[in-house]
Amino acid sequence: MQLLIDRIRAEGKVLPGDIIKVDGFLNHRVDTALLSALADEFTKYFPMDKITMVLTAEASGIALATICAQRYGVPLLFAKKAKSDNIEGGLYQSDVFSYTYKKKVTYIISQEWLHADDHVLIIDDFMAKGNAMQGLVDLVNAAGATLEGIGIAVEKGFQGGGDRFRALGVPYKALAVIDKVEGTDLTFRED
Amino acid sequence: MQLLIDRIRAEGKVLPGDIIKVDGFLNHRVDTALLSALADEFTKYFPMDKITMVLTAEASGIALATICAQRYGVPLLFAKKAKSDNIEGGLYQSDVFSYTYKKKVTYIISQEWLHADDHVLIIDDFMAKGNAMQGLVDLVNAAGATLEGIGIAVEKGFQGGGDRFRALGVPYKALAVIDKVEGTDLTFRED
Repeated sequence: MQLLIDRIRAEGKVLPGDIIKVDGFLNHRVDTALLSALADEFTKYFPMDKITMVLTAEASGIALATICAQRYGVPLLFAKKAKSDNIEGGLYQSDVFSYTYKKKVTYIISQEWLHADDHVLIIDDFMAKGNAMQGLVDLVNAAGATLEGIGIAVEKGFQGGGDRFRALGVPYKALAVIDKVEGTDLTFRED
Repeated sequence: MQLLIDRIRAEGKVLPGDIIKVDGFLNHRVDTALLSALADEFTKYFPMDKITMVLTAEASGIALATICAQRYGVPLLFAKKAKSDNIEGGLYQSDVFSYTYKKKVTYIISQEWLHADDHVLIIDDFMAKGNAMQGLVDLVNAAGATLEGIGIAVEKGFQGGGDRFRALGVPYKALAVIDKVEGTDLTFRED
């Protein structure tokens, strides 16, 4: 999506370790007008008439997923990071190794809010190795719900997560895929 | 706000320890149509023409604050919980004792995104003792920005946080204030 690619080129920063920083408009300070445009763009790629729920993980996916859920007229559900002393019954949970936290993170969802008859669109701001996304897919499967698609704002294509989910057999769309980082120069994948 | 009070009465649950659970529409599964109505209601209480930014804290405040920022046409900024191995320079930070986590949490904001000429409306989903809110107010003050108001969806009036911020001298509005919990019976404060 050219609008997003242009924005990353204009305002994104590359930090050591191939970290792509887009915290001026996507995941710290948030430009909700841009998110609305992303939410519109996603509708081209998923079976919107089937979707009953948008799912994301806390924390940085929530802003984009909220705008998407509002645009599509369905509830948003966000998986929470479990606090070790706060695990109750009635939950679906999945363990994820977080490279940001450098430790295991457990995502939880109340069984009350995700059901076998739900048709779920997962939305997240970033795709890297895909561990967090696998945790979300596991939660959808645990509930016996139907995964209808995965929508990502920015994918780091060279980290492999995106290609893993493209092979899943459900619609997958990342609106900007960064295939290479050389110094501060970014190469985006052709659409 | 009657719409919110009715929703809490219909769908909220009281758990042991006076925990008010509204995770079916506010902070786990999220009803974005309700959030839009809350965002509209807040405009009655704050100097909307002055506000340049909506500020909240991750994670559960982000959905409501996103809808507010979109409605008011200003950026959203959310304070992040610091990871101990991830504190960089160029940050404002404030320490908060979290009763949920039962430990100290450090909120951080990049100095790049909050400036002395900003006029900030803080939005959060819940107000209890007010520790997280004090952390956000400290961040606004650290930046030398102007706090224009504090907007809360649900306040637990009996925990004292709200009254502390009503004394601050800036507009404060909680759309539903629960003054008493007896068994599963809730008493709301008159508007």
